Amino acid sequence: MAIHLKAVLLIADGLGGRPTDYYGKTCLEAAHTPNIDELAKRGVTGLLDPIKPGVRPGSDTAHLSIFGYNPEKVYTGRGVFEALGIGMNVKEGDVCFRTNFATVDEKLNVLDRRAGRITEGAKELEKALQNLKPSQPDVKVFFKASTEHRGALVLRGKGLSDEITDADPHKTGVKMVYAKPLVSNDSAMRTAELVNEIVKQSYDILKNVSLNRKREEEGKPPANILLLRGASIKTEIPSLKELYGVKGVAIAGGALYIGIAKALGLETKKAEGTTGGADSKIINKAKLAVKELRDGKDFVFIHLKGADSCAHDHDAEAKIKYIQKVDEVVGFLIENLDWEETHLVFTGDHTTPIVYGDHVSDPVPIVFVGPNVTADDVEEFNEKSVLKGGLGRISGRVVPILFGYCNWLKKYGS
Amino acid sequence: MAIHLKAVLLIADGLGGRPTDYYGKTCLEAAHTPNIDELAKRGVTGLLDPIKPGVRPGSDTAHLSIFGYNPEKVYTGRGVFEALGIGMNVKEGDVCFRTNFATVDEKLNVLDRRAGRITEGAKELEKALQNLKPSQPDVKVFFKASTEHRGALVLRGKGLSDEITDADPHKTGVKMVYAKPLVSNDSAMRTAELVNEIVKQSYDILKNVSLNRKREEEGKPPANILLLRGASIKTEIPSLKELYGVKGVAIAGGALYIGIAKALGLETKKAEGTTGGADSKIINKAKLAVKELRDGKDFVFIHLKGADSCAHDHDAEAKIKYIQKVDEVVGFLIENLDWEETHLVFTGDHTTPIVYGDHVSDPVPIVFVGPNVTADDVEEFNEKSVLKGGLGRISGRVVPILFGYCNWLKKYGS
Repeated sequence: MAIHLKAVLLIADGLGGRPTDYYGKTCLEAAHTPNIDELAKRGVTGLLDPIKPGVRPGSDTAHLSIFGYNPEKVYTGRGVFEALGIGMNVKEGDVCFRTNFATVDEKLNVLDRRAGRITEGAKELEKALQNLKPSQPDVKVFFKASTEHRGALVLRGKGLSDEITDADPHKTGVKMVYAKPLVSNDSAMRTAELVNEIVKQSYDILKNVSLNRKREEEGKPPANILLLRGASIKTEIPSLKELYGVKGVAIAGGALYIGIAKALGLETKKAEGTTGGADSKIINKAKLAVKELRDGKDFVFIHLKGADSCAHDHDAEAKIKYIQKVDEVVGFLIENLDWEETHLVFTGDHTTPIVYGDHVSDPVPIVFVGPNVTADDVEEFNEKSVLKGGLGRISGRVVPILFGYCNWLKKYGS
Repeated sequence: MAIHLKAVLLIADGLGGRPTDYYGKTCLEAAHTPNIDELAKRGVTGLLDPIKPGVRPGSDTAHLSIFGYNPEKVYTGRGVFEALGIGMNVKEGDVCFRTNFATVDEKLNVLDRRAGRITEGAKELEKALQNLKPSQPDVKVFFKASTEHRGALVLRGKGLSDEITDADPHKTGVKMVYAKPLVSNDSAMRTAELVNEIVKQSYDILKNVSLNRKREEEGKPPANILLLRGASIKTEIPSLKELYGVKGVAIAGGALYIGIAKALGLETKKAEGTTGGADSKIINKAKLAVKELRDGKDFVFIHLKGADSCAHDHDAEAKIKYIQKVDEVVGFLIENLDWEETHLVFTGDHTTPIVYGDHVSDPVPIVFVGPNVTADDVEEFNEKSVLKGGLGRISGRVVPILFGYCNWLKKYGS
């Protein structure tokens, strides 16, 4: 019988670039990456359109598509994943929001959408907001603060809708803007009413919290209202375990990625010393991944955020430097994975070029390595070298292809 | 911030060919095309399946797919685009037909489906047909003649259907054939009745037009009836401006291409001296394109018809010669576009091989050029050289990919 195979998905967020990144080269071309190039030497390379050609992906839709899910069917917005990612319990049919603590005056003019990027007292505000009580008694409200002004709110009840606009003016110096139904059905109208009631209650509760009186005394903007945006309803998403029988773990730091992993039924772990910033000890993610596989996991998803952040900041040198840190991660994996039984795929979730500083639809290089992979002749890994890759150009579905090499797919037909 | 980018879509209709075209080469291989090859040197090449592999496209469905629309959703037939293309106003829900002036005898046997390819008097016939009056008073009829025997007719009213057969026997020497409903619902039955009433009225009107009496005296077949074919209903198609915020213009001559451009919300312009024939001064299209971009347009679509027409005529030498004219167009664009800000894609809307003389499903070469494109190593542009291209094989969606290079896509997800 075949040995039991293992799988690793290594995503460097925003990995792809353009020739305008750095003196006629992409950052990936410019970086010194002997280990990543070693993957290209050993494996099969090509181009990945995270969703499909000519679609500009968000990180959320891209990851869903890479995991083999059709975002048009399962994606309703980022809120669900953010709520899951900060540790909230989200059930099918729940409507989730991303929230901001903000500052309003007594006439509910919005003065600061982030309450001066408040850094302290989130737990006190969160505790106070446990008293949110909608007048519709069959609906439950859950709120959790995350970092700084950020948080998430979950509404649970029958017949709620995410087809409503934001309760957030998205700018300052204007009157508070309330949620409106986007369609004229009872669910949407009822949910919009609920949201607006909650926003008003949040003001009544938060204005009296002692933290805010103290902030006002200190001349700081009080965190005296909750803005709600990006309503999204939790759909049914079959887990990777249900689909493939796989016991997997995600090693990620960002709430969004943790949330996506949870939505797909993966266990989630953080590696020590990882911060999401340029100083993050991402090598610890590789160490944890190797340990998890040795401890019996079938599948590890490692998410590395930094390349995308550097590109959003238009900082080519930082992105190049971060890619060289990713190369060390790859080096550790090459050294420490059991290559008789492990398949690994390395790619980005999208291209984030330096000049544009945001996601674009250009495809991103990808490489599959492992005992069942027929290798091509490509010996470097970048946007140009993989144009000759043997994988061709694929649209999403990276994880099903990876699991295919591991013999974990169910037969379709007979 | 980034400079404002520009985009050019250059389509040589029926560009693709087969090795059976001309002594073991395709016409594109046989033609001398230094400028088109220069595009290959500068850009990334590959193969385009206009719709998807194994689908044999029409020019209309191919163009819709190339523009990023799903023809299965937005295409109901050629009539809508022909009517728009000859300058008729077509609204959502209108049912459009392509029409022929034809010749029938007094028993309504069809003697000539094109009334002897009548070349004169179209305006007189068109004017006479303004008296078409259906007995259903809530339905309006619009008719416009175009070239020779051709024209279009539009029905406007609530609850009309395009699910009817043609009022056209499609051969001569037989009795007139009337429209029948293809489904048994009120709309289809009512529309078929309407069409048949209009055809009969057209005979009553046209037989008495002085032009026809004159033609009969001269022994020419009178244009005494209107045949209606290809019923198609105008669906809602979001414009390129709505989808991408782009101000675009189409430079085309053929009614179909003008109609498609109008349906997608593009402005349309004709270049001087362009005829659709082999002698057409297509270089003027390139000149106009450069002017339009300099005058502030974001996007220009240039349509060149000749290669397809030559291939339909099984004339390899004419097709080769026309491709060499296209090469001059490309040369002018290479010289005169601002390559720091412009992305261009050059391809065909389908393959039309010489031996078969009609559209086939074989993919067609494609090349993208511009500052954000990672170039491959291909140095010539033809069916064989692009097999090694870095773009791989794409299915439609050429314009979304082009606009992606220009940073014009909205993000899907966040």
